[in-house]
Amino acid sequence: MTAPTERNARCSVARSLEVLGEKWTLLVVREALWGITRFRDFRERLGVAPDILAARLDTLVRGGVLERHPYREAGQRQRDEYVLTEAGQQLKTVLAAFVAWGDAHRPSEYGPASVYVERATQEPVRLAFLRADGMELDSQDVMSVPGPGALAAAG
Amino acid sequence: MTAPTERNARCSVARSLEVLGEKWTLLVVREALWGITRFRDFRERLGVAPDILAARLDTLVRGGVLERHPYREAGQRQRDEYVLTEAGQQLKTVLAAFVAWGDAHRPSEYGPASVYVERATQEPVRLAFLRADGMELDSQDVMSVPGPGALAAAG
Repeated sequence: MTAPTERNARCSVARSLEVLGEKWTLLVVREALWGITRFRDFRERLGVAPDILAARLDTLVRGGVLERHPYREAGQRQRDEYVLTEAGQQLKTVLAAFVAWGDAHRPSEYGPASVYVERATQEPVRLAFLRADGMELDSQDVMSVPGPGALAAAG
Repeated sequence: MTAPTERNARCSVARSLEVLGEKWTLLVVREALWGITRFRDFRERLGVAPDILAARLDTLVRGGVLERHPYREAGQRQRDEYVLTEAGQQLKTVLAAFVAWGDAHRPSEYGPASVYVERATQEPVRLAFLRADGMELDSQDVMSVPGPGALAAAG
């Protein structure tokens, strides 16, 4: 099997998936966006095996999404906590897009698990396509076209 | 290993990743958004092994993202082509969020591979958070909070 990025090195979706594509990764980022920073908290909240969690955290650190910050609790050895970088914070848009799609097309009887709100007012916000002049567009009126970095015919 | 969705059934990110989480899946959707519908075209453009592509297309059909439509070329057997459903079309927002993040944080020397444009004018558009009153918010002013479907303490 050819890895996606060999033939798709120019595609930012493929490059993003190198960091974010494994199943637990975006769930770790979701927790980090809620303020979780410690290994044990990620593990308990996600119910993920420690070796898998360690591997995903490592991928996210190497990918520039999380940074390790040492901390020490009284009477314990020094540990690292995991803090979102600015690039990591900006994954909010990716997560919000997944949440909106999942809530619309894979709804749960419990309602949305994440809600995106304005920090100052806690009022819900939505993700939308905007023109350069700030006008909101319906997603049907938006299309994806190959950009300068798109591969030619065969890719 | 516990699958993400066992402990995270209420999370729409986890539910979305059941359909979209495997590495090739979003790349197949990217091609579909560009108008690709046929197995051979997906295979040649992505350079993906036929068995993996068949499995991913099957996941996307079962997940309601693609629909099979039969077609027949002169002198050939009937085949299926793969057409985005409305839910599939709405993945445009997820892909656009990945592309924007990847272009900002995993840039390629070639420039963006996908560009999102207004269908009528072909002018570039951007993805942004909006308040209910239509005002655009900087992503720093937006936060993710647990919604009604969020699991309690342990999840």
